[in-house]
Amino acid sequence: MNNLDCINRLINCFTNLPGVGYKTAERYAYKIIESDSSFTEEFITAMRAVKSNVKFCVTCGNFAEKDSCNICDKRKSETVCVVRDPRDVIAIEKSGAFRGTYHVLHGVLSPLDKKGPDDINLKSLLVRIREQSLREIIIATNPDVEGEATANYIASLVKPSGIRVTRIAQGLALGTNLEYADTVTLSSAINNRVVL
Amino acid sequence: MNNLDCINRLINCFTNLPGVGYKTAERYAYKIIESDSSFTEEFITAMRAVKSNVKFCVTCGNFAEKDSCNICDKRKSETVCVVRDPRDVIAIEKSGAFRGTYHVLHGVLSPLDKKGPDDINLKSLLVRIREQSLREIIIATNPDVEGEATANYIASLVKPSGIRVTRIAQGLALGTNLEYADTVTLSSAINNRVVL
Repeated sequence: MNNLDCINRLINCFTNLPGVGYKTAERYAYKIIESDSSFTEEFITAMRAVKSNVKFCVTCGNFAEKDSCNICDKRKSETVCVVRDPRDVIAIEKSGAFRGTYHVLHGVLSPLDKKGPDDINLKSLLVRIREQSLREIIIATNPDVEGEATANYIASLVKPSGIRVTRIAQGLALGTNLEYADTVTLSSAINNRVVL
Repeated sequence: MNNLDCINRLINCFTNLPGVGYKTAERYAYKIIESDSSFTEEFITAMRAVKSNVKFCVTCGNFAEKDSCNICDKRKSETVCVVRDPRDVIAIEKSGAFRGTYHVLHGVLSPLDKKGPDDINLKSLLVRIREQSLREIIIATNPDVEGEATANYIASLVKPSGIRVTRIAQGLALGTNLEYADTVTLSSAINNRVVL
Protein backbone atom coordinates (compact mmCIF):
# COMPACT_ATOMS: atom_id res chain seq x y z
CA MET A 1 0.00 0.00 0.00
CA ASN A 2 1.17 3.47 -0.81
CA ASN A 3 -0.13 6.72 0.55
CA LEU A 4 -3.73 7.64 -0.12
CA ASP A 5 -4.26 9.66 -3.30
CA CYS A 6 -5.16 12.86 -1.51
CA ILE A 7 -2.03 12.57 0.67
CA ASN A 8 0.11 12.00 -2.44
CA ARG A 9 -1.33 15.12 -3.95
CA LEU A 10 -0.38 17.21 -0.93
CA ILE A 11 3.09 15.64 -0.88
CA ASN A 12 3.53 16.64 -4.54
CA CYS A 13 2.61 20.20 -3.68
CA PHE A 14 5.19 20.32 -0.92
CA THR A 15 7.94 18.92 -3.18
CA ASN A 16 7.56 22.10 -5.26
CA LEU A 17 8.90 24.19 -2.39
CA PRO A 18 12.63 24.98 -2.69
CA GLY A 19 14.94 22.28 -1.34
CA VAL A 20 12.12 19.92 -0.34
CA GLY A 21 12.52 16.27 -1.37
CA TYR A 22 9.95 13.51 -1.18
CA LYS A 23 10.72 12.40 2.38
CA THR A 24 10.57 15.94 3.75
CA ALA A 25 7.35 16.62 1.83
CA GLU A 26 5.90 13.47 3.35
CA ARG A 27 6.74 14.70 6.87
CA TYR A 28 5.10 18.05 6.15
CA ALA A 29 1.98 16.34 4.77
CA TYR A 30 1.69 14.12 7.86
CA LYS A 31 2.03 17.20 10.04
CA ILE A 32 -0.90 18.78 8.17
CA ILE A 33 -2.97 15.61 8.62
CA GLU A 34 -2.19 15.32 12.30
CA SER A 35 -2.66 18.97 13.24
CA ASP A 36 -5.90 20.74 14.08
CA SER A 37 -8.15 22.05 11.36
CA SER A 38 -7.55 25.54 12.74
CA PHE A 39 -3.85 25.23 11.84
CA THR A 40 -4.69 24.32 8.24
CA GLU A 41 -7.25 27.10 8.00
CA GLU A 42 -4.71 29.63 9.32
CA PHE A 43 -2.26 28.31 6.71
CA ILE A 44 -4.81 28.64 3.91
CA THR A 45 -5.85 32.13 5.02
CA ALA A 46 -2.20 33.23 5.17
CA MET A 47 -1.51 31.84 1.70
CA ARG A 48 -4.57 33.51 0.23
CA ALA A 49 -3.71 36.81 1.96
CA VAL A 50 -0.20 36.76 0.55
CA LYS A 51 -1.42 36.01 -2.96
CA SER A 52 -4.02 38.77 -2.92
CA ASN A 53 -2.17 41.46 -0.93
CA VAL A 54 1.43 41.26 -2.05
CA LYS A 55 2.18 43.33 -5.13
CA PHE A 56 5.38 44.76 -6.50
CA CYS A 57 6.34 48.40 -5.97
CA VAL A 58 5.96 50.24 -9.29
CA THR A 59 9.15 52.21 -8.62
CA CYS A 60 11.61 49.66 -7.24
CA GLY A 61 10.00 46.23 -7.71
CA ASN A 62 10.10 45.40 -3.99
CA PHE A 63 7.17 43.66 -2.27
CA ALA A 64 4.42 46.15 -1.48
CA GLU A 65 0.85 46.14 -0.23
CA LYS A 66 0.03 49.30 -2.16
CA ASP A 67 1.40 50.64 -5.47
CA SER A 68 4.49 51.88 -3.70
CA CYS A 69 6.56 49.95 -1.12
CA ASN A 70 7.23 51.11 2.45
CA ILE A 71 10.77 52.18 1.58
CA CYS A 72 9.95 54.21 -1.54
CA ASP A 73 7.09 55.78 0.43
CA LYS A 74 9.26 57.00 3.28
CA ARG A 75 12.67 57.71 1.81
CA LYS A 76 13.91 60.15 -0.76
CA SER A 77 17.42 59.18 -1.70
CA GLU A 78 19.95 59.95 -4.38
CA THR A 79 21.56 56.56 -3.86
CA VAL A 80 19.92 53.40 -5.16
CA CYS A 81 21.04 49.92 -4.15
CA VAL A 82 20.37 47.32 -6.86
CA VAL A 83 19.64 43.81 -5.55
CA ARG A 84 18.45 40.56 -7.00
CA ASP A 85 15.54 39.65 -4.71
CA PRO A 86 13.22 41.31 -2.19
CA ARG A 87 14.86 39.13 0.49
CA ASP A 88 18.17 40.87 -0.26
CA VAL A 89 16.47 44.17 0.62
CA ILE A 90 15.56 42.74 4.01
CA ALA A 91 19.10 41.42 4.56
CA ILE A 92 20.63 44.84 3.81
CA GLU A 93 18.01 46.64 5.92
CA LYS A 94 18.86 44.35 8.84
CA SER A 95 22.54 45.28 8.53
CA GLY A 96 21.59 48.94 8.98
CA ALA A 97 24.46 49.99 6.71
CA PHE A 98 22.30 51.54 4.01
CA ARG A 99 19.41 53.98 4.32
CA GLY A 100 18.72 54.82 0.69
CA THR A 101 16.25 53.32 -1.76
CA TYR A 102 16.47 50.00 -3.56
CA HIS A 103 15.89 48.53 -6.96
CA VAL A 104 14.91 44.86 -7.11
CA LEU A 105 15.85 43.04 -10.33
CA HIS A 106 13.87 39.84 -9.63
CA GLY A 107 16.64 37.75 -11.08
CA VAL A 108 20.06 38.12 -12.66
CA LEU A 109 21.36 37.67 -16.19
CA SER A 110 21.80 33.96 -16.77
CA PRO A 111 22.24 32.68 -20.34
CA LEU A 112 21.95 29.07 -19.15
CA ASP A 113 18.47 29.76 -17.73
CA LYS A 114 17.68 31.88 -20.79
CA LYS A 115 17.42 35.03 -18.70
CA GLY A 116 18.45 38.09 -20.65
CA PRO A 117 18.22 41.84 -19.89
CA ASP A 118 14.51 41.87 -20.85
CA ASP A 119 13.67 39.18 -18.31
CA ILE A 120 14.79 41.15 -15.26
CA ASN A 121 13.48 44.40 -13.86
CA LEU A 122 16.02 46.62 -15.64
CA LYS A 123 13.85 48.95 -17.75
CA SER A 124 12.34 50.64 -14.73
CA LEU A 125 15.87 51.25 -13.38
CA LEU A 126 16.74 53.12 -16.58
CA VAL A 127 13.52 55.12 -16.20
CA ARG A 128 14.55 56.03 -12.66
CA ILE A 129 17.97 57.09 -13.89
CA ARG A 130 16.35 59.40 -16.44
CA GLU A 131 13.62 60.79 -14.20
CA GLN A 132 15.11 60.93 -10.70
CA SER A 133 18.26 62.88 -9.93
CA LEU A 134 20.41 59.99 -8.75
CA ARG A 135 24.03 60.37 -7.66
CA GLU A 136 25.09 56.78 -7.02
CA ILE A 137 24.02 53.27 -7.88
CA ILE A 138 25.36 50.53 -5.61
CA ILE A 139 25.17 47.13 -7.27
CA ALA A 140 24.64 44.50 -4.59
CA THR A 141 24.04 41.33 -6.60
CA ASN A 142 25.63 38.16 -5.22
CA PRO A 143 29.40 37.78 -5.77
CA ASP A 144 29.01 34.79 -8.11
CA VAL A 145 29.41 34.45 -11.90
CA GLU A 146 25.87 35.57 -12.74
CA GLY A 147 25.85 38.32 -10.14
CA GLU A 148 29.17 39.71 -11.42
CA ALA A 149 28.01 39.55 -15.05
CA THR A 150 24.81 41.38 -14.15
CA ALA A 151 26.77 44.00 -12.20
CA ASN A 152 29.08 44.64 -15.16
CA TYR A 153 26.16 44.84 -17.56
CA ILE A 154 24.29 47.35 -15.39
CA ALA A 155 27.48 49.38 -14.94
CA SER A 156 27.91 49.59 -18.71
CA LEU A 157 24.31 50.84 -19.04
CA VAL A 158 24.52 53.41 -16.25
CA LYS A 159 27.99 54.86 -16.75
CA PRO A 160 27.17 56.97 -19.87
CA SER A 161 24.65 58.93 -17.76
CA GLY A 162 27.50 60.10 -15.52
CA ILE A 163 26.08 58.55 -12.34
CA ARG A 164 28.61 56.95 -10.02
CA VAL A 165 28.33 53.15 -10.12
CA THR A 166 29.76 51.12 -7.25
CA ARG A 167 29.89 47.43 -6.35
CA ILE A 168 29.70 46.04 -2.80
CA ALA A 169 33.13 44.90 -1.59
CA GLN A 170 34.39 41.36 -1.85
CA GLY A 171 36.69 40.11 0.86
CA LEU A 172 36.91 37.85 3.88
CA ALA A 173 33.75 37.51 5.96
CA LEU A 174 33.93 38.24 9.70
CA GLY A 175 35.27 35.24 11.60
CA THR A 176 36.63 33.47 8.53
CA ASN A 177 39.86 31.55 8.77
CA LEU A 178 42.36 32.94 6.24
CA GLU A 179 43.78 29.46 5.76
CA TYR A 180 40.47 28.11 4.48
CA ALA A 181 39.41 31.08 2.34
CA ASP A 182 39.12 30.32 -1.39
CA THR A 183 41.78 31.82 -3.63
CA VAL A 184 39.48 34.24 -5.49
CA THR A 185 38.12 35.72 -2.26
CA LEU A 186 41.62 36.00 -0.85
CA SER A 187 42.86 37.73 -4.03
CA SER A 188 39.94 40.18 -3.83
CA ALA A 189 40.67 40.86 -0.17
CA ILE A 190 44.30 41.66 -0.95
CA ASN A 191 43.60 43.69 -4.09
CA ASN A 192 40.86 45.71 -2.39
CA ARG A 193 42.84 46.32 0.81
CA VAL A 194 42.06 49.56 2.67
CA VAL A 195 44.35 52.02 4.40
CA LEU A 196 44.17 51.91 8.21
CA MET B 1 12.01 47.48 6.94
CA ASN B 2 10.93 43.97 7.80
CA ASN B 3 8.69 41.67 5.82
CA LEU B 4 5.11 42.75 5.21
CA ASP B 5 2.63 41.58 7.85
CA CYS B 6 0.89 39.09 5.57
CA ILE B 7 4.25 37.59 4.60
CA ASN B 8 5.24 37.29 8.26
CA ARG B 9 2.01 35.46 8.94
CA LEU B 10 2.72 32.91 6.22
CA ILE B 11 6.30 32.51 7.44
CA ASN B 12 4.96 31.76 10.94
CA CYS B 13 2.69 29.08 9.50
CA PHE B 14 5.62 27.43 7.74
CA THR B 15 7.78 27.45 10.88
CA ASN B 16 5.20 25.10 12.44
CA LEU B 17 6.15 22.38 9.97
CA PRO B 18 8.64 19.84 11.39
CA GLY B 19 12.29 20.87 11.11
CA VAL B 20 11.55 24.23 9.49
CA GLY B 21 13.37 27.26 10.92
CA TYR B 22 12.77 30.92 10.16
CA LYS B 23 15.10 31.15 7.16
CA THR B 24 13.64 28.07 5.50
CA ALA B 25 10.09 29.26 6.19
CA GLU B 26 11.02 32.57 4.58
CA ARG B 27 12.22 30.76 1.44
CA TYR B 28 8.96 28.77 1.27
CA ALA B 29 6.89 31.94 1.70
CA TYR B 30 8.79 33.70 -1.09
CA LYS B 31 8.21 30.68 -3.31
CA ILE B 32 4.46 30.97 -2.65
CA ILE B 33 4.56 34.70 -3.46
CA GLU B 34 6.53 34.22 -6.65
CA SER B 35 4.63 31.24 -8.02
CA ASP B 36 1.40 31.28 -10.05
CA SER B 37 -1.94 31.53 -8.31
CA SER B 38 -2.77 28.11 -9.74
CA PHE B 39 0.05 26.60 -7.66
CA THR B 40 -1.33 28.13 -4.46
CA GLU B 41 -4.86 27.04 -5.32
CA GLU B 42 -3.67 23.48 -5.97
CA PHE B 43 -1.90 23.61 -2.59
CA ILE B 44 -5.01 24.87 -0.82
CA THR B 45 -7.24 22.29 -2.52
CA ALA B 46 -4.83 19.49 -1.58
CA MET B 47 -4.70 20.66 2.06
CA ARG B 48 -8.49 20.89 2.29
CA ALA B 49 -8.89 17.47 0.64
CA VAL B 50 -6.49 15.88 3.11
CA LYS B 51 -8.26 17.44 6.09
CA SER B 52 -11.70 16.38 4.94
CA ASN B 53 -10.94 12.95 3.41
CA VAL B 54 -8.31 11.40 5.65
CA LYS B 55 -9.78 9.50 8.59
CA PHE B 56 -8.37 6.78 10.77
CA CYS B 57 -9.26 3.13 10.23
CA VAL B 58 -11.57 1.99 13.06
CA THR B 59 -9.76 -1.35 13.26
CA CYS B 60 -6.08 -0.52 13.01
CA GLY B 61 -5.80 3.27 13.26
CA ASN B 62 -4.09 3.64 9.87
CA PHE B 63 -5.00 6.47 7.46
CA ALA B 64 -8.21 5.64 5.59
CA GLU B 65 -10.63 7.35 3.26
CA LYS B 66 -13.53 5.19 4.51
CA ASP B 67 -14.17 3.62 7.92
CA SER B 68 -11.72 0.86 7.15
CA CYS B 69 -8.26 1.27 5.57
CA ASN B 70 -7.14 -0.39 2.31
CA ILE B 71 -5.12 -3.00 4.17
CA CYS B 72 -7.80 -4.06 6.66
CA ASP B 73 -10.24 -4.17 3.72
CA LYS B 74 -8.17 -6.52 1.61
CA ARG B 75 -6.27 -8.73 4.04
CA LYS B 76 -7.33 -11.23 6.63
CA SER B 77 -4.34 -12.09 8.74
CA GLU B 78 -3.57 -13.78 12.02
CA THR B 79 -0.40 -11.72 12.35
CA VAL B 80 -0.58 -8.07 13.37
CA CYS B 81 2.38 -5.71 13.13
CA VAL B 82 2.25 -2.91 15.71
CA VAL B 83 3.84 0.36 14.59
CA ARG B 84 4.05 3.88 15.87
CA ASP B 85 2.91 5.94 12.86
CA PRO B 86 1.05 5.46 9.57
CA ARG B 87 4.32 6.28 7.80
CA ASP B 88 5.87 3.18 9.41
CA VAL B 89 3.15 1.12 7.72
CA ILE B 90 4.25 2.52 4.37
CA ALA B 91 7.92 1.84 5.14
CA ILE B 92 7.21 -1.81 6.00
CA GLU B 93 4.91 -2.22 3.00
CA LYS B 94 7.68 -0.92 0.75
CA SER B 95 10.08 -3.53 2.16
CA GLY B 96 7.64 -6.24 1.03
CA ALA B 97 8.66 -8.40 4.02
CA PHE B 98 5.25 -8.43 5.71
CA ARG B 99 1.85 -9.09 4.22
CA GLY B 100 -0.33 -9.16 7.35
CA THR B 101 -2.37 -6.44 8.98
CA TYR B 102 -1.14 -3.55 11.09
CA HIS B 103 -1.98 -1.69 14.23
CA VAL B 104 -0.98 1.96 14.41
CA LEU B 105 -0.37 3.33 17.92
CA HIS B 106 -0.13 7.01 16.92
CA GLY B 107 2.65 7.55 19.41
CA VAL B 108 4.68 5.65 21.98
CA LEU B 109 4.78 5.68 25.75
CA SER B 110 6.77 8.71 26.80
CA PRO B 111 6.60 9.88 30.42
CA LEU B 112 8.57 13.03 29.55
CA ASP B 113 5.90 14.07 27.03
CA LYS B 114 3.20 12.89 29.43
CA LYS B 115 2.12 10.14 27.06
CA GLY B 116 0.76 7.15 28.94
CA PRO B 117 -1.05 3.98 27.79
CA ASP B 118 -4.35 5.89 27.49
CA ASP B 119 -2.83 8.42 25.09
CA ILE B 120 -1.90 5.92 22.40
CA ASN B 121 -4.15 3.64 20.33
CA LEU B 122 -3.82 0.58 22.62
CA LYS B 123 -7.38 -0.14 23.68
CA SER B 124 -8.45 -1.10 20.17
CA LEU B 125 -5.47 -3.51 20.00
CA LEU B 126 -6.76 -5.27 23.11
CA VAL B 127 -10.21 -5.41 21.50
CA ARG B 128 -8.68 -7.03 18.42
CA ILE B 129 -6.87 -9.54 20.60
CA ARG B 130 -10.17 -10.50 22.23
CA GLU B 131 -12.31 -10.54 19.12
CA GLN B 132 -10.02 -11.69 16.30
CA SER B 133 -8.22 -15.01 16.39
CA LEU B 134 -4.65 -13.68 16.28
CA ARG B 135 -1.59 -15.91 16.40
CA GLU B 136 1.27 -13.42 16.49
CA ILE B 137 1.88 -9.79 17.28
CA ILE B 138 5.05 -8.29 15.85
CA ILE B 139 6.05 -5.13 17.67
CA ALA B 140 7.82 -2.82 15.23
CA THR B 141 8.26 0.38 17.24
CA ASN B 142 11.57 2.19 16.78
CA PRO B 143 14.60 0.68 18.55
CA ASP B 144 15.01 3.64 20.92
CA VAL B 145 14.25 4.05 24.63
CA GLU B 146 10.59 4.93 24.18
CA GLY B 147 10.04 2.36 21.44
CA GLU B 148 11.58 -0.39 23.61
CA ALA B 149 9.54 0.62 26.65
CA THR B 150 6.35 0.58 24.58
CA ALA B 151 7.27 -2.83 23.14
CA ASN B 152 7.83 -4.29 26.60
CA TYR B 153 4.60 -2.80 27.90
CA ILE B 154 2.55 -4.21 25.01
CA ALA B 155 4.26 -7.59 25.42
CA SER B 156 3.24 -7.68 29.09
CA LEU B 157 -0.36 -6.91 28.12
CA VAL B 158 -0.57 -9.46 25.31
CA LYS B 159 1.34 -12.43 26.75
CA PRO B 160 -1.42 -13.54 29.21
CA SER B 161 -3.71 -14.17 26.21
CA GLY B 162 -1.26 -16.80 24.94
CA ILE B 163 -0.58 -15.00 21.64
CA ARG B 164 3.03 -15.08 20.43
CA VAL B 165 4.66 -11.66 20.80
CA THR B 166 7.77 -10.87 18.75
CA ARG B 167 9.99 -7.83 18.30
CA ILE B 168 11.71 -6.83 15.06
CA ALA B 169 15.42 -7.66 15.13
CA GLN B 170 18.11 -5.22 16.14
CA GLY B 171 21.47 -5.50 14.46
CA LEU B 172 23.75 -3.89 11.92
CA ALA B 173 22.06 -2.21 8.96
CA LEU B 174 23.09 -3.22 5.44
CA GLY B 175 26.26 -1.44 4.38
CA THR B 176 27.20 -0.35 7.89
CA ASN B 177 30.82 -0.28 8.90
CA LEU B 178 31.31 -2.52 11.94
CA GLU B 179 34.02 -0.20 13.20
CA TYR B 180 31.61 2.72 13.48
CA ALA B 181 28.58 0.85 14.85
CA ASP B 182 27.52 1.93 18.35
CA THR B 183 28.16 -0.52 21.17
CA VAL B 184 24.50 -1.30 21.93
CA THR B 185 23.75 -2.16 18.30
CA LEU B 186 26.89 -4.28 18.08
CA SER B 187 25.98 -6.14 21.29
CA SER B 188 22.49 -6.80 19.92
CA ALA B 189 23.94 -8.04 16.65
CA ILE B 190 26.20 -10.49 18.46
CA ASN B 191 23.60 -11.66 20.99
CA ASN B 192 20.98 -12.18 18.30
CA ARG B 193 23.31 -13.94 15.86
CA VAL B 194 21.68 -16.46 13.53
CA VAL B 195 22.89 -19.87 12.39
CA LEU B 196 24.02 -19.96 8.75
